[in-house]
Amino acid sequence: MTVTTSGSPGAPSTTSPRDDRTTRYRRAADFVAAAMIYLRDNVVLREPLRPEHLKPRLLGHWGTCPGITYVYSGLNGLVRRTGQRTLFVVGPGHGAPAVHANLWLEGTHADHDPALSRDAAGLAELVRRFSWPGGFPSHLSPQVPGVIHEGGELGYALATAFGAALDDPDLMVACLVGDGEAETGPTAGSWHCPKFLDPVRCGSVLPVLHLNGYKISSPTIYGTMDDEELSDYFRGAGWSPHIVDVTALRDLSTSDTGGADGADAEAGARADRLLAESLDAAHAEITALRQRCREGDWPGRPVWPMLVVRSPKGWGAPERDSRGVPLAGTFHAHQVPLPDVATDPDQLALLEEWLRSYRPEELFDEDGRPAPDLLEVPPEGDLRLGSVPQANGGRLRRDLPLPPLRPHAVDVPSPGAAEAGATTTLANWLTDLMRATEDRRDFRIVCPDELESNKLGAVLSTTGRAYTWPVPGYSEHLATDGRVMEVLSEHLCQGFLQGYLLTGRHGLFPCYEAFVSIVDGMVNQYAKFLKMAGEVAWRAPVASLNYLLTSEGWRQEHNGYSHQGPGFINSMLNKKASVSRIYLPPDANTLLVVMRHCLGTTNRINVVVAGKQPAQQWLDLDAAEAHCRAGAGVWEWACNDGGRPRDPERPDVVLACAGNIPTVEVLGAAWLLRRHAPELRVRVVNVVDLLVLPPPRRHPHGMDETEFAACFGDDAPVVFGFHGYPSAVHELLHGRADPNRFHVHGYLEEGTTTTPYDLLASNRMTRHDLAAAAVSRARGWASRGGAVAEALREERDDILRRAHRDGEDPEEITGWRWTS
Amino acid sequence: MTVTTSGSPGAPSTTSPRDDRTTRYRRAADFVAAAMIYLRDNVVLREPLRPEHLKPRLLGHWGTCPGITYVYSGLNGLVRRTGQRTLFVVGPGHGAPAVHANLWLEGTHADHDPALSRDAAGLAELVRRFSWPGGFPSHLSPQVPGVIHEGGELGYALATAFGAALDDPDLMVACLVGDGEAETGPTAGSWHCPKFLDPVRCGSVLPVLHLNGYKISSPTIYGTMDDEELSDYFRGAGWSPHIVDVTALRDLSTSDTGGADGADAEAGARADRLLAESLDAAHAEITALRQRCREGDWPGRPVWPMLVVRSPKGWGAPERDSRGVPLAGTFHAHQVPLPDVATDPDQLALLEEWLRSYRPEELFDEDGRPAPDLLEVPPEGDLRLGSVPQANGGRLRRDLPLPPLRPHAVDVPSPGAAEAGATTTLANWLTDLMRATEDRRDFRIVCPDELESNKLGAVLSTTGRAYTWPVPGYSEHLATDGRVMEVLSEHLCQGFLQGYLLTGRHGLFPCYEAFVSIVDGMVNQYAKFLKMAGEVAWRAPVASLNYLLTSEGWRQEHNGYSHQGPGFINSMLNKKASVSRIYLPPDANTLLVVMRHCLGTTNRINVVVAGKQPAQQWLDLDAAEAHCRAGAGVWEWACNDGGRPRDPERPDVVLACAGNIPTVEVLGAAWLLRRHAPELRVRVVNVVDLLVLPPPRRHPHGMDETEFAACFGDDAPVVFGFHGYPSAVHELLHGRADPNRFHVHGYLEEGTTTTPYDLLASNRMTRHDLAAAAVSRARGWASRGGAVAEALREERDDILRRAHRDGEDPEEITGWRWTS
Repeated sequence: MTVTTSGSPGAPSTTSPRDDRTTRYRRAADFVAAAMIYLRDNVVLREPLRPEHLKPRLLGHWGTCPGITYVYSGLNGLVRRTGQRTLFVVGPGHGAPAVHANLWLEGTHADHDPALSRDAAGLAELVRRFSWPGGFPSHLSPQVPGVIHEGGELGYALATAFGAALDDPDLMVACLVGDGEAETGPTAGSWHCPKFLDPVRCGSVLPVLHLNGYKISSPTIYGTMDDEELSDYFRGAGWSPHIVDVTALRDLSTSDTGGADGADAEAGARADRLLAESLDAAHAEITALRQRCREGDWPGRPVWPMLVVRSPKGWGAPERDSRGVPLAGTFHAHQVPLPDVATDPDQLALLEEWLRSYRPEELFDEDGRPAPDLLEVPPEGDLRLGSVPQANGGRLRRDLPLPPLRPHAVDVPSPGAAEAGATTTLANWLTDLMRATEDRRDFRIVCPDELESNKLGAVLSTTGRAYTWPVPGYSEHLATDGRVMEVLSEHLCQGFLQGYLLTGRHGLFPCYEAFVSIVDGMVNQYAKFLKMAGEVAWRAPVASLNYLLTSEGWRQEHNGYSHQGPGFINSMLNKKASVSRIYLPPDANTLLVVMRHCLGTTNRINVVVAGKQPAQQWLDLDAAEAHCRAGAGVWEWACNDGGRPRDPERPDVVLACAGNIPTVEVLGAAWLLRRHAPELRVRVVNVVDLLVLPPPRRHPHGMDETEFAACFGDDAPVVFGFHGYPSAVHELLHGRADPNRFHVHGYLEEGTTTTPYDLLASNRMTRHDLAAAAVSRARGWASRGGAVAEALREERDDILRRAHRDGEDPEEITGWRWTS
Repeated sequence: MTVTTSGSPGAPSTTSPRDDRTTRYRRAADFVAAAMIYLRDNVVLREPLRPEHLKPRLLGHWGTCPGITYVYSGLNGLVRRTGQRTLFVVGPGHGAPAVHANLWLEGTHADHDPALSRDAAGLAELVRRFSWPGGFPSHLSPQVPGVIHEGGELGYALATAFGAALDDPDLMVACLVGDGEAETGPTAGSWHCPKFLDPVRCGSVLPVLHLNGYKISSPTIYGTMDDEELSDYFRGAGWSPHIVDVTALRDLSTSDTGGADGADAEAGARADRLLAESLDAAHAEITALRQRCREGDWPGRPVWPMLVVRSPKGWGAPERDSRGVPLAGTFHAHQVPLPDVATDPDQLALLEEWLRSYRPEELFDEDGRPAPDLLEVPPEGDLRLGSVPQANGGRLRRDLPLPPLRPHAVDVPSPGAAEAGATTTLANWLTDLMRATEDRRDFRIVCPDELESNKLGAVLSTTGRAYTWPVPGYSEHLATDGRVMEVLSEHLCQGFLQGYLLTGRHGLFPCYEAFVSIVDGMVNQYAKFLKMAGEVAWRAPVASLNYLLTSEGWRQEHNGYSHQGPGFINSMLNKKASVSRIYLPPDANTLLVVMRHCLGTTNRINVVVAGKQPAQQWLDLDAAEAHCRAGAGVWEWACNDGGRPRDPERPDVVLACAGNIPTVEVLGAAWLLRRHAPELRVRVVNVVDLLVLPPPRRHPHGMDETEFAACFGDDAPVVFGFHGYPSAVHELLHGRADPNRFHVHGYLEEGTTTTPYDLLASNRMTRHDLAAAAVSRARGWASRGGAVAEALREERDDILRRAHRDGEDPEEITGWRWTS
């Protein structure tokens, strides 16, 4: 099951021992990557290197570059030999120069941008454009072909690779994981992912853990593990590990990608053969496993191969700088190994010596074109690692066959005259969608073991939870080919989905609202990816990333405080307006309409917050469609004209709400006010699309002033019952005329295990609190309002006393249900 | 190195085979835990169980409870036998009933609250209080003695345990990790923590991975791994694993904590002996390793023991419910196994049968007191797991010996007349602090391998980076006893620090600003812990959690977009006002003052944002002290009275700033305006404490209206250069009179690898943008302002053109430095 290739030569090889094309190719790529970091001119060293050839600002990270090219060129060979379509996910995104160099050599760059042609002009442009204002960023980014993972915030490459491999049976996703990145929790958790990957209907993932020993300035954890520890660890996680130890080949303190002397060239070629052998062996294992499983001969545990590659950090850089500081093989090579070349002639000389050690004159012809044999190293057409169609997944994306809503819509004869669970209702429609995509296999649900809890379990009637390891008795709904991914890791769920979407598929991430903050950092980065991708002409739009946040804080009365936290809404408000959408459907039919809309959109992050408990329903399907189209609106049926002639322009007070629970409480407040202050003129407004609130210059969904006034009046006090932190509404209202007329009630970071009413009370959000606030603030009610508010608060306190003392259910005490 | 105890009996034991006290104790604890979930009355079943004895709402999680008690009671025995002071960190916080039951049995509960006495009245109170409005939450929380980890959001128990063990050489921290929690990335990453734990100067961590096979509704990953995989995995991570497999002892589908028949009782006792043997063996390994290391005989790799315990989920619950659904040993036992006892007489009968299977009449006397032999199972005094002083670390906390600032203060003869790096300056003071705490060992720095990058490397002159595994050559500043923890995992850094602070020590977390969002979820939970702990009378305050956010987005011109993200400020604004503080010191001396202040506070989360690049300095130490005390103030030296008589009340425009880079740009704008619009009356205000901005009713630091007007005027337009997202200032200003007079410039989520000036320009934050905005909006400048603004914008565009085309440095083009 386990093959460990040691550094000793002599094993049979599929590549000729005398064939050093790969090594020469690697010399070329390393040379170009180094040039990108330092040079703005004289890029193939036609003349002696002078300070004016240097970039004014030296940016970039050399340390990981040679290792990336080592693996990139090894994969080139494998694809050449096997025709295996391979997507390459590079975790250490700061090694961008290496990827650029390979993209230029294989011609992918020229395909996307003629200015990056495979000649002297193109090379000069490539070199200059890197880390230059307006040019290529120093990290991988959506501007770079072949990239589906940015790698600036480390930790997510491996989960993303698994997401990309799902439901794409002929794809192999090679994933380079740096040993810095390997220290992160999300990467550590990702090593268990094979247990979710079906060898029959999915592709494969070939991880390459790249140990160069150091991160920015310390040794790495995995770099200090010996071969036995590494083998044990990965075998335990369910892999068949292959260790490729370049550092054991020879003393690698100097350049050996094929430097000047024959010994180095031979060492470089041996390193390439060693990797080729391991890649071939790994690929053979993959092929055998897939074939065996596809023929129905399922092994107890489908074990996949993975590689551990040890190579020196900054491999090929000078051994020491001019002051004797060690560079190659140490953390000093992490960024720019010779930072003072512009001012220190010794460093400049060292740089020239280093660059010339690649012998560019042997690699590029007079016109700056790579030598013909180098062009034969990478595969061709869309088998090139940078040109694999899956890396521009929007091109492959097909619109989902969204089923009709009507069969699942709740019949709501009049507001309040029906009861349903929003997510339960949605689950039936999602089941139809699962069925409609059964053959296409381009829709998945990821969820941190909360599908049942979130009342979405119905989808398990059409597909199982993906799992390939043997499971204990009494397990339910598990299937090797399931399209629901349940793992108790929001990081893995997010990574899976990102990889799946960016390779052209669709998905949904239902999550406990409070715990989606676990992936705040990942979502920050994904939002950046979408924003930048939208600015790249050749990137086709991908399906939106859709969150369904439920088990929300207001109904965490049984789990309590730790399970309350609506802050993800605030995080989303910081994203670019083109990317972020936030919907708070108040009932089942609005949830159906919103979710169908979201699953039809592209390049967005849609956050949908909905309830999972059975609840009164407000809108029939037609009303829901109209309400969602508008984004917000007055609910006439809940308003009260106070017995006076209707005057839509002048309510005494507006009761506004956003979110399913606040909607109930605001309606309760309106109902209470009809009894306690019948002559009060109350308008009730519901907001389903939160982004109608800001001025239109801040968000494209922002209502213009006329629409805004039609909802909220011109100058009436507004008591706003909001699902999340009041701060979210406060910031959205900035720039609206007189924002201080809005009095926002929301989650005040109070909670415990208690009754739902008590949770609301501790955050001053019960119907009684809202009614009291409304009548106190209502226009013209300064004198009368106080007494009414006092009576309402006493009623609230009485309810709380009985609940605390006797365990009585406040809902039963109040006995309230909306009746029109 | 590795001992695996199988399920086979017969191994020599330190406990008598006939001594079943532990098993009886466990029966009592399981009974009490089950009673807490279901009962409000008749809690020791003196009479037949009737519906009115049940709680109106059945809340809690039975599934993990018996396993927690199994380990809790096993640890009791170990402590009894060895006197080993042990802190118990329980990862599965939803198993609170088990912890409560043990705290009651050992008498810790009664020590904290006489109402929870060890008799019938106390038991009734305990049982009723659980999951009751106003009572104990259903999860662990700061209200529960012995708890330093809440366990609502899963994943952080193990890192917290390691933090607690640091610098406390005689402490053992036992850490229960559920197999649900084990799937999270942060937990997976935490298995490498022993590599950071010094056996000489630190305590030990004994992890107990508890495999009960299922999470909410699916099998768990680790539960599906076989013993060989588990052993390989943990051995590879550097542990000596012991597997304790209770499920192999017998068919455990029915209660066997010592049920009615003798076979069950015997099985229960065998399970306890099995655990005791493994605990004894593990403790012996720990003792031997510590002794060896303390005697100077350092092993190549200090390998610690850990336990894997397999036990059935919901162990002891009925085999099936009245409808035949399997319960014990399946995920159906996760929450409340018989949810319909109130309405289903068959379920009620099953519940009574289940509760009576523990034979409470043998365990509690007439007065509800535990039988005398049970009282002998737990240890005594502060060796009880719930009474270990470290779990109420505030009691142990000593104020830090904060060194004087003056030796490190930057000499600033006049504003702008000095240059220094803020974090470089701070590093020297921190070095003093490290030195001052060398013997006390109660101050640590955690950092995701960014200490050098953040210019804090000076501290490494007094202490090393903690690491115990062999490191490669060229590694620098590593030491087994180092007090700097550098691991490329923000999760581990945060977990370490939480454990360290909550056990009474102090610390600092320097972090790249953009990547602190990785721990957003953890910080949410920690803020909740602090808020609740502050409401518990017996909890002493702990040292604040201090973040130093640097390498901030405005100076990520070399890493680019992925490294820009000031959203942590927004997240902090959602925390309780008693917990959150946000400081933006504009220069080195203000950073010194702020950091000294933060390190002297308790029970807060202090976020300090500061620059790491050499920069102009504004305030000498005395001015810095005064400015930080005020929180914000007018910088008279930067104001311009426009040649008119001074009128402090009526500037034409206010230029405000918060953050080191915005301060430079705002000063630049003031400087530009003196030249472009010399007669403009400009006030310059700097904000160092962001929480002076909201009205005082929203935050205790909020300025009253008089102070606010003294800074920002009554009605002048304010152009505000802000470090983070403008939304943060927008939400803070809600409730201030006329917030729309504030025009906030800040980070607009634009960035790439470029020049610092270009980064500012893409977010409309250059000195030219700010000056143009100020002159356009200034009172009385409607007609003149436009032309001046246009000229300023042209200057900006010209600078950008030259930078993009020629790589010229915009700073050199402008040639600007503040001169008073």
